[in-house]
Amino acid sequence: MDMDTLLVEPGGLEQVEDALGRFFEESKVRAAKIGPGYHALWETLERCTAGGKRFRPRMVMSAYQMLGGRDIENAAELGAAFELLHTALIVHDDVIDRDFVRRGIPNVSGHYRSVAEGAGLSPEGARHVGLSAGVIAGDLALSNAYRLLERIEAPTATRRRLGQILDEAVFASAAGEFLDIESSLDPAMPPLEDIVQMARLKTSVYSFEGPLQAGAVLAGADEEVIGRLGDFGRDAGIAYQIADDLLGVFGNETRTGKTNWGDLREGKRTALMSFVADRPEWSSISSLVGSPGMSASDADYVRRILVDSGARDYSADLAADYASRARTHLESGAVPPALRTALEPVVTAVVDRVR
Amino acid sequence: MDMDTLLVEPGGLEQVEDALGRFFEESKVRAAKIGPGYHALWETLERCTAGGKRFRPRMVMSAYQMLGGRDIENAAELGAAFELLHTALIVHDDVIDRDFVRRGIPNVSGHYRSVAEGAGLSPEGARHVGLSAGVIAGDLALSNAYRLLERIEAPTATRRRLGQILDEAVFASAAGEFLDIESSLDPAMPPLEDIVQMARLKTSVYSFEGPLQAGAVLAGADEEVIGRLGDFGRDAGIAYQIADDLLGVFGNETRTGKTNWGDLREGKRTALMSFVADRPEWSSISSLVGSPGMSASDADYVRRILVDSGARDYSADLAADYASRARTHLESGAVPPALRTALEPVVTAVVDRVR
Repeated sequence: MDMDTLLVEPGGLEQVEDALGRFFEESKVRAAKIGPGYHALWETLERCTAGGKRFRPRMVMSAYQMLGGRDIENAAELGAAFELLHTALIVHDDVIDRDFVRRGIPNVSGHYRSVAEGAGLSPEGARHVGLSAGVIAGDLALSNAYRLLERIEAPTATRRRLGQILDEAVFASAAGEFLDIESSLDPAMPPLEDIVQMARLKTSVYSFEGPLQAGAVLAGADEEVIGRLGDFGRDAGIAYQIADDLLGVFGNETRTGKTNWGDLREGKRTALMSFVADRPEWSSISSLVGSPGMSASDADYVRRILVDSGARDYSADLAADYASRARTHLESGAVPPALRTALEPVVTAVVDRVR
Repeated sequence: MDMDTLLVEPGGLEQVEDALGRFFEESKVRAAKIGPGYHALWETLERCTAGGKRFRPRMVMSAYQMLGGRDIENAAELGAAFELLHTALIVHDDVIDRDFVRRGIPNVSGHYRSVAEGAGLSPEGARHVGLSAGVIAGDLALSNAYRLLERIEAPTATRRRLGQILDEAVFASAAGEFLDIESSLDPAMPPLEDIVQMARLKTSVYSFEGPLQAGAVLAGADEEVIGRLGDFGRDAGIAYQIADDLLGVFGNETRTGKTNWGDLREGKRTALMSFVADRPEWSSISSLVGSPGMSASDADYVRRILVDSGARDYSADLAADYASRARTHLESGAVPPALRTALEPVVTAVVDRVR
């Protein structure tokens, strides 16, 4: 599901693009002084940052502006910092998943794998060169998210708080990524609470809670609002992730832009799987799920079982339930009407998509 | 060459240990709330940070104290930040080099490779799990170097400057790491100026220039002193790296703690190789250098050629030359005598080791 359909357009997105553009321009100038190869790495990283939906900057800018913030240019640096964090996480996530393509084009690792193949390396050697370049490029994006934060004009206490929010986003995302690896070592499907925790760690914190709270902190919002936005972000992110997992198996491939049996073949840990693994139907599909040799008709069979066992409805209800909890936080009174109106479509879209 | 022999003992190293200890304690408490697996990842990262020589904190603390800084506890956070950066770089460097052991014990990747093997994964699958855990752990160390920096009490302008120094260290180290990979794709040995640039990028900036300048900035030193320390750090780091490469080929294995033909087998780009690659002798060893099948007697033969061609003496002279340049910066008058006395042994040790 494209996150860009989830939000009304806040102002300031152009300033976020400008901030990112300035950052990459400066970095490329610095890199060119070291040499053309390093300059090219920065160009590759810039290409991997372009074309995103800017979901996290949208969250930052919505919260900031709807809570009375007026210094759009300053807030745009914060939006850009979260976008760079996003780039860092996807670049390293692709290294961990050994993916060489993203959004239909070679990612950092894919680009340098081709370069290494062109230099005559073995396929295995070229893959490793690609992944190594991905490690380095992700490090640059990660550290420069902090660098962009340094540029923000704000009192020391505010700056520290923004730093803590960014840290929390990194800490939680790393935890989610790590638990994902750990859980792949265990053949058993994890219980639902682990699935929900993973969704919170991998999605809610850096995509919803962090950007919303950071925008609110920079706007000087009340603690109560900041707290409510955190609660909203947590539940909206969980709803989003459960819905996204559902679309990964049942979604229209043209609309989601990915095959809808990759997740089944990988044995991805989702609410669907956690539900069905506790039912008698599991015995008929457990050997298929997570099997690299899964065929299209195997996938159809697994999907039928997921429907018949009630796993699909259960997951859709669960996503709707978290979306509804998220809405409750918005409607608690602390969040001003304009911001409520801006964020409402996020949860509506989640529910609409999985029904 | 152990960097710990290079410097007199500054005060404040215990406070650096305390700062690192507090940081890991807090992080483990936070991680434990997420789960025992994440707590264990933090323990592993802590183990990989322990046992280092604290060379970079020594640089920070020497500069800070000898330039009149009095708030040792505050400076110790800065020293700890550079130590965490060091951890981040070695953890990711090991991922890139596919090394699973450091200082004789399993590193992060080695630990998680064993865990994955225990869970029944194939050797290839287990290696990948290990490397993935290394990517995540390095990200945590990297981002938390910035986190420690946030804790420092200093005026905004000073904090920004410290942030820029840390950024520069990351920017340069990433460049050095990346150019290393790029140069491995080119069978030709690079010219000497590229070798020197690589030494500066990979060693000088984050181990010498950055920590010295950061300590000086926090102590409120004059621009002239800060500039001179940068010059000293650049040349001392280059001298150190050239000497270290020399010991990697000719050093006593017991003293250096590593085999002295690994670098030859890898075809590591060093001043030695750059020199000999331009001489007629090169044709007799070019097929051996960088060959995975190199035997001990091949290595002896290559060493003899490196001596006879003058490559060894050339490299030793080059290291001594950079050490002497470094000494000149110290003696320029801007650097106070106490700090000069503290840093002098760094360059003396380099020259002594390669003679």
